[in-house]
Amino acid sequence: MATLTVPAAVPPVADDCEQLRKAFKGWGTNEKLIISILAHRDAAQRRAIRRTYAEAYGEELLRALNDEIHGKFERAVILWTLDPAERDAVLANEEARKWHPGGRALVEIACARTPSQLFAVKQAYHDRFKRSLEEDVAAHVTGDFRKLLVPLVTAYRYDGPEVNTSLAHSEAKILHEKIHHKAYSDDEIIRILTTRSKAQLLATFNSYNDQYFEKIIRLALGGMGTDENSLTRVITTRAEVDLKLIKEAYQKRNSVPLEKAVAKDTTRDYEDILLALLGAE
Amino acid sequence: MATLTVPAAVPPVADDCEQLRKAFKGWGTNEKLIISILAHRDAAQRRAIRRTYAEAYGEELLRALNDEIHGKFERAVILWTLDPAERDAVLANEEARKWHPGGRALVEIACARTPSQLFAVKQAYHDRFKRSLEEDVAAHVTGDFRKLLVPLVTAYRYDGPEVNTSLAHSEAKILHEKIHHKAYSDDEIIRILTTRSKAQLLATFNSYNDQYFEKIIRLALGGMGTDENSLTRVITTRAEVDLKLIKEAYQKRNSVPLEKAVAKDTTRDYEDILLALLGAE
Repeated sequence: MATLTVPAAVPPVADDCEQLRKAFKGWGTNEKLIISILAHRDAAQRRAIRRTYAEAYGEELLRALNDEIHGKFERAVILWTLDPAERDAVLANEEARKWHPGGRALVEIACARTPSQLFAVKQAYHDRFKRSLEEDVAAHVTGDFRKLLVPLVTAYRYDGPEVNTSLAHSEAKILHEKIHHKAYSDDEIIRILTTRSKAQLLATFNSYNDQYFEKIIRLALGGMGTDENSLTRVITTRAEVDLKLIKEAYQKRNSVPLEKAVAKDTTRDYEDILLALLGAE
Repeated sequence: MATLTVPAAVPPVADDCEQLRKAFKGWGTNEKLIISILAHRDAAQRRAIRRTYAEAYGEELLRALNDEIHGKFERAVILWTLDPAERDAVLANEEARKWHPGGRALVEIACARTPSQLFAVKQAYHDRFKRSLEEDVAAHVTGDFRKLLVPLVTAYRYDGPEVNTSLAHSEAKILHEKIHHKAYSDDEIIRILTTRSKAQLLATFNSYNDQYFEKIIRLALGGMGTDENSLTRVITTRAEVDLKLIKEAYQKRNSVPLEKAVAKDTTRDYEDILLALLGAE
């Protein structure tokens, strides 16, 4: 769903280069000609133009653009002409050097690129700035943003579909506990969000949803009178599924074992069957 | 992560049935014995016990339980003893017959079961109640809940990983438009949420996130002075990715084409390159 329009018949690369050379020479610069070529070539075509231009004229195309055009127009043409990974490297460097918390470019690059795209950005950063993206982010960004952005740009996350379900459960518990205590920038939250794959995080967020049943049980037991219908429904439908996780969530949230809370609110045989299904010893 | 505990050495099914028979006979009912057996057998084992019990004694186990035990204890034992699909059918029927908007059982069954589990519930519902789950939900549930629950329990959704990306884009646009107008119970929202697979919906929600860039552009153009840095960043980084969707989101939200808004806030060559990248004619 790109907006880029490339002509049905693209001229040979050498012709594009010759036209660009013409646009730079003579009386003033022909900006319309520059736009008519570069704004209508895709990334691979622009890369070929840069290579051929440098070979033909012994000068980098970007250097020529830098000499000939200026200001906002120059920035747009140069950013566009770059490869996506180089462009991200330039945007990241630009923002890191004059960091402010409203900056969006680093967040977009760190969060919205695939792991392999991000790795290409980091390689382009090395090539262009002779430093690492990580060190510049660490040196310039401050506070909670640094805590999150440095590991985000450092990690080379797994990008495949494999998921570890028990890990998802245990990390959902960690997230729940930290978020419950409003410890949003806790090291464990940062570690999970910055190192786990998208698929693994999705499994973790799904597991996080098990807290729904903790809430249903908490409401069934709390307050005036017990809601036995809901209590029985949740325990009988989840005992063979995930009641252990619900029990753990209950204890964490209410600081009392679920068996104890159930025993307090129920009696006799009804109490006995619920406790048996809860796995009470 | 179940809490169910099954003994290492499970007695033969015939022995379990004999013990249950004993628990029902003689002076009063032996509830402890019932619990010690049924609460420690898994779904397949309980199914075998029911079958063997009926063959051996010419009476359904559930009928015997119904005669011998009562109230909350009876409900818990019977719900537990049922197969998961039968249990859901009973819970759904119970809640449909005395429907109130605070009911959770139908929502849990309609939303949190897999498509094949839900189909098994609907079969069990036919067998037990000689009616369809759909017709009972349609007959008893009211208002927006009915609008959502009837198609949810009616659909047999695709459960695989295949996703149609362009469909995700077009349905994200529909959701965005409806939600923007607070038309939360609109037929199109209901249709999308109730018929699309989990994987397809996930793709749709991801596509919905493209609206982020619409916002960045809107803020860059709106207000006092134009934020050319952000405008250039979004247009150059998205022109070969999803700028067409961002343009559509912009027009929908602001009732003005993005090209027109950009032309209004920029001039000369800078305007020309942005419009070219936006695919303006």
